[in-house]
Amino acid sequence: MQETRLDTARIRAARQVIDPIFLDTPMYRCEALEPDLGCTVSIKLETANPVRSFKARGTELVASLLADNGSRAVVCASAGNLGQALAWSGRGRGLDVTVVASRFAPVAKLDRIRALGARLELVDGDFDLARERAATIARHDGIRLVEDSLDIETCEGAATIGLELVDTVPSFDAVLIALGGGALATGVGHVVKSLAPGVEVICVQPLGAPAMTHSWRRRRVVTTDSTDTIADGVAGRCPIPAVLDDLLLVADDAVLVRETSIIAGMRMLLDHAGLVVEPSAALGIAAILEDRDRFAGRHVVTIVCGSNVDVDAYHRWVGAAPIHRS
Amino acid sequence: MQETRLDTARIRAARQVIDPIFLDTPMYRCEALEPDLGCTVSIKLETANPVRSFKARGTELVASLLADNGSRAVVCASAGNLGQALAWSGRGRGLDVTVVASRFAPVAKLDRIRALGARLELVDGDFDLARERAATIARHDGIRLVEDSLDIETCEGAATIGLELVDTVPSFDAVLIALGGGALATGVGHVVKSLAPGVEVICVQPLGAPAMTHSWRRRRVVTTDSTDTIADGVAGRCPIPAVLDDLLLVADDAVLVRETSIIAGMRMLLDHAGLVVEPSAALGIAAILEDRDRFAGRHVVTIVCGSNVDVDAYHRWVGAAPIHRS
Repeated sequence: MQETRLDTARIRAARQVIDPIFLDTPMYRCEALEPDLGCTVSIKLETANPVRSFKARGTELVASLLADNGSRAVVCASAGNLGQALAWSGRGRGLDVTVVASRFAPVAKLDRIRALGARLELVDGDFDLARERAATIARHDGIRLVEDSLDIETCEGAATIGLELVDTVPSFDAVLIALGGGALATGVGHVVKSLAPGVEVICVQPLGAPAMTHSWRRRRVVTTDSTDTIADGVAGRCPIPAVLDDLLLVADDAVLVRETSIIAGMRMLLDHAGLVVEPSAALGIAAILEDRDRFAGRHVVTIVCGSNVDVDAYHRWVGAAPIHRS
Repeated sequence: MQETRLDTARIRAARQVIDPIFLDTPMYRCEALEPDLGCTVSIKLETANPVRSFKARGTELVASLLADNGSRAVVCASAGNLGQALAWSGRGRGLDVTVVASRFAPVAKLDRIRALGARLELVDGDFDLARERAATIARHDGIRLVEDSLDIETCEGAATIGLELVDTVPSFDAVLIALGGGALATGVGHVVKSLAPGVEVICVQPLGAPAMTHSWRRRRVVTTDSTDTIADGVAGRCPIPAVLDDLLLVADDAVLVRETSIIAGMRMLLDHAGLVVEPSAALGIAAILEDRDRFAGRHVVTIVCGSNVDVDAYHRWVGAAPIHRS
């Protein structure tokens, strides 16, 4: 493998800096899912922690470095999960955290960012507009801008999941990774390709937000004008060139899935695994549902990367309507 | 503390025998629950494993000992979770597992017991009738009967949760434990009272299945004629004397909660923690809801002990009706 921006020794060292509450997350085979999927399925569960997503693995690194440098403030754009995680990590280290998000982000995510003490600024547009605004704030205030997937700490944090996969699962054939900005995919992909090169690294993105997948396929940055998916956590339009370069080195495939498959995946995880997940976390199951032949009889790991959903929207998606809630 | 049947050194040793997939489960503060509860709440999550409850900690011990002794078969009565766990642990060690359960147990639990390869026998009555039938099978076939809460391995397995609590949580004031047969309460209670005696051990049972709580309060076994609760996992009528003796030594209190509080607890765990739990696993939250003053400002740990629910019943309880499910 050619060299990515990541380094396995640095990723191992990162584990020392991340609050253990985010590490060594559950990893288990979920046989109840298997009759419908036709393959062996193991879940790596990143939702049972104070921010309900994997993102704090990266923000722990960022906030720790900032605190060591005597920094006082930090800003990021977020689809919702990075902002929560940075708010959590920053609060514990006395940092003033500003999060810029789309006003269309899930209310649950925005509420939690505020509840964790961050200053939340909403933009009347999507995640990529929030990125621009966060950059402006960083320049104006002279504070650190955290850019998800571009900043190496965000990738290294995510990559610690990869270490846990290769260190604990006896053997698996493929790992399915939600693809948004690319921190999770390049981080986990780097570790898997370095330490278990026979494992297939498959990135999964919604058909309604395909920019990075199109970019990976054409080996150059392809942007889109808009996104149309319930998977808010991965809905970007403007891939970052350096991240694409890494993704080209570590991903064996990038696939696009339909919204109906994402919903079916969420429903299966609820019905058969008892897991509430956000749409991005069901992308892996969706990919299996859309191509059972590809995975038949193989051992597939899917990273359940977040569970921050608006409850009413969730019920609507999985086919249960709220009634009579007090 | 006077001596219970448990021994902390044996409990530490038990960790070596239990598949690590069931150990070191997530333990985290859940701030999103706190505004409604008025106290600091940490969750010990026992649902993210192949059997979705804590019960395999005990069945791993049982099955391991049986396998070491060259045993071929084992039988237990189960409300549903022990049976799944014994089926899982027995399958991995080549044991023939028979589970006796009530035909009124949740379909999801019964289906999983069968799917894990156990022979399932249903009785036309409740858990205590299943206990009698399992004992008859054991005598007739000359095989080991696993009696939940009576058999020390089931308590020692549960007690490993206690070790993880006192070893990982910096400090907490009380632990809320679902009370059924008493394995979880006496196991965790023993460890907490041995290693962190200042922590209040509070057992929680439904008003509709109060036998053990009544027994604890009167310091003698009190049975009931029937049970009436959705918390199927803790619905016993006939407390075991030896378990009551231990409970009298380790429990600071035993409280009874209403069904409406259990449902409110399940809903809160879904809405604010993104967790699907079975009714027994919401007993701790229910106890806080019924007595906020008691817990105000304190740090309370609640063990979320299982997530095996029938999905349709679950939606009915938490206030969302299934529609249009394909």
